[in-house]
Amino acid sequence: MIAEIITIGSEITMGSTLNTHSKYISGKLLEIGIETYYHTSVDDNKARVKDIIKISLQRADLIITTGGLGPTDDDLTKEVITEALGLDLVKDIDMENNIKSIFDKLNKTMSNNNLKQALKPKGSQFLKNSIGTAPGILLSKDNRTIVMLPGPPKEMELMFNNEVLPLLHEDFNIINKSINIIGIGESQLEMRIKDLINKDPDIKIATFAKELEVEIKIVGKGKNKDIIENKVNNVIKILEDRFNEYIYGFDNVPIEAIVLNLLKEKGYKVGFCESCTGGLISSRFSRIPGVSEVFDRSIVTYSNNAKIEELGVKSDTLEKYGAVSEETAIEMANGLLTRNNLNLALSITGIAGPDGGTDKKPVGLVYMCIANKGISIPIKCNFNGNRESIQNKASIRAFFELRKFLLIND
Amino acid sequence: MIAEIITIGSEITMGSTLNTHSKYISGKLLEIGIETYYHTSVDDNKARVKDIIKISLQRADLIITTGGLGPTDDDLTKEVITEALGLDLVKDIDMENNIKSIFDKLNKTMSNNNLKQALKPKGSQFLKNSIGTAPGILLSKDNRTIVMLPGPPKEMELMFNNEVLPLLHEDFNIINKSINIIGIGESQLEMRIKDLINKDPDIKIATFAKELEVEIKIVGKGKNKDIIENKVNNVIKILEDRFNEYIYGFDNVPIEAIVLNLLKEKGYKVGFCESCTGGLISSRFSRIPGVSEVFDRSIVTYSNNAKIEELGVKSDTLEKYGAVSEETAIEMANGLLTRNNLNLALSITGIAGPDGGTDKKPVGLVYMCIANKGISIPIKCNFNGNRESIQNKASIRAFFELRKFLLIND
Repeated sequence: MIAEIITIGSEITMGSTLNTHSKYISGKLLEIGIETYYHTSVDDNKARVKDIIKISLQRADLIITTGGLGPTDDDLTKEVITEALGLDLVKDIDMENNIKSIFDKLNKTMSNNNLKQALKPKGSQFLKNSIGTAPGILLSKDNRTIVMLPGPPKEMELMFNNEVLPLLHEDFNIINKSINIIGIGESQLEMRIKDLINKDPDIKIATFAKELEVEIKIVGKGKNKDIIENKVNNVIKILEDRFNEYIYGFDNVPIEAIVLNLLKEKGYKVGFCESCTGGLISSRFSRIPGVSEVFDRSIVTYSNNAKIEELGVKSDTLEKYGAVSEETAIEMANGLLTRNNLNLALSITGIAGPDGGTDKKPVGLVYMCIANKGISIPIKCNFNGNRESIQNKASIRAFFELRKFLLIND
Repeated sequence: MIAEIITIGSEITMGSTLNTHSKYISGKLLEIGIETYYHTSVDDNKARVKDIIKISLQRADLIITTGGLGPTDDDLTKEVITEALGLDLVKDIDMENNIKSIFDKLNKTMSNNNLKQALKPKGSQFLKNSIGTAPGILLSKDNRTIVMLPGPPKEMELMFNNEVLPLLHEDFNIINKSINIIGIGESQLEMRIKDLINKDPDIKIATFAKELEVEIKIVGKGKNKDIIENKVNNVIKILEDRFNEYIYGFDNVPIEAIVLNLLKEKGYKVGFCESCTGGLISSRFSRIPGVSEVFDRSIVTYSNNAKIEELGVKSDTLEKYGAVSEETAIEMANGLLTRNNLNLALSITGIAGPDGGTDKKPVGLVYMCIANKGISIPIKCNFNGNRESIQNKASIRAFFELRKFLLIND
């Protein structure tokens, strides 16, 4: 099966928006054994979109489009594809009622444009959009499968994974595993897994790096499920032995969620006090649903005064060692721990830059401290990158250190 | 002049490598008034590359390819394009000597494959590669211009900027402006600018939406700079009149940075107290370098206890009105304002979901309050989306409200 990914939108062809969809979708298709030969992007022009669709019908079995499903006049994907295939658009009553009820709930008036979203090509099926209003569409005709996905990345990814991938699965057994790693660089990692990479044609191993984290992806493909499963598990075992100290999880469960579960399991109530990360650790943590059970409060003490007033850091300590020091980090964490409801605190103070660095305390220097019941564990780190990248890396590292602490302490 | 960008390489179509070339090149072309209608990527397959080239010759005046110019057998761009155009490859003696001398200098032996790089389609010219061995090629035939660039990003960008752009420059002036808007949906916005969109062929207007924000891009193109500037400014003036209450800035300066500058200008020290956003407002704000001048501290009061203990919210208030209420938001902000160093506080409390919603207080309901010197301004909002999206939207809206407050209060 040959796939073509078509991304529709002038913002892409004009160079305003980077097209990340085509990479995302073809990477996922490869995981289930479907090869993509073409990526095409075209501006929001009816005639040109139609031509592109016609060309793709000549050369691909699976055509996946993104974008152009919204309510505005620019959004013409559905209309054009319907035309190119010589079909009619029909109204779906359930979808119309669904859209109406969303607008009712929000107390917003609905325009006729919004009702456009209840139309679909005859013989097609809607694909559920669980976080947006524009539904997707799946259509089969003349041995071609055409899938229309919305443009916003989160909507597209969710719909593709939940609604499309299960329908496309070929007669292969695909086993897909990931190992998630923090604290070792991608190039170093690659050197240390070179011997495994082309060892077995049924097993593909690839690494993907993003800000302090590396994912090792292991994809096994074959007719016999047991054999493939065995092979994948063997590779995972070898990798676990090699990288044990760096592995924090599997299959891309975010480190925050792993920490959340450990906190629940061990009965901790955690609080964060942040300086250089300015609330990032708390906000990453509270992205995860259900944190209220273990998360009580955080204090962002950006100024020295705030460190003194909110956390009881001594002005002597700040003067003698500076705000970015092990001593300050320890006093911050213990200051937060005086709150009644908390039995675990993590503090962080550092130099996120671009200014404020010195020879002795360069930009990227960060101190953390994990404190509970009389134990204080200070951690010193150095991160590189710009301000945003240092803040991101520091926050990921904080969760990595918390996980380590939770695994060895009860 | 219509452009098509063709990126050649299986690593792109397989989803291993993100295609950033097409965005880069079309963005640069737009700046000199050349519009790109198509981006195409294809795997390293001779027949498919040839088909792609033939299609592009039918629909574009300027075709720019990247990749496939290296010495390996996979690199077939030049050969295929030469064939597709019905031309012959000829050896360039100067280039051959050049390549030989590079290998002599490096003390490496040259393979026949390396000599492949001295071939070019008859009638074409080489483009200098100042940091790699693969030269580019520029070719004009039948009113089409075909440019072949190497794949490595730095080589491609340098060659494109130094060797290609100067040859493509049209005699046009381009003016590029953006208006940034919060609080009105893209579809409603588009309905209200419909009359402007195709009014003047020299002025292109497009909208781009992302999480609560919409960017209106205005691109003017013409021979006479003053006339174009005038036309663009007129459109901006009309849009300012129409959307005054929603506009927060121009040319994509982030709202946080606009708020930061207003706070500096007016001499405020701000603090945030966050419940449902869990620190996101603080962390967005502290992404901006230089916030320490106006940002003192934040308190994330996730639990009711934290609201009482850290901010002095009355338990009566929490019981009677609930944690998600105007009353609680007001007490939170005023509680934070008791700190010595602060003269401005923003509080936020809401239901980010997925759980915790009721009929009366659905997921997405958020209360904010801005407080200073005896003034308390409560704000009620409703956001849709998943947990992350609600948190994102609430944080953007918080900065939008702060900006409004700062513009009318001294």
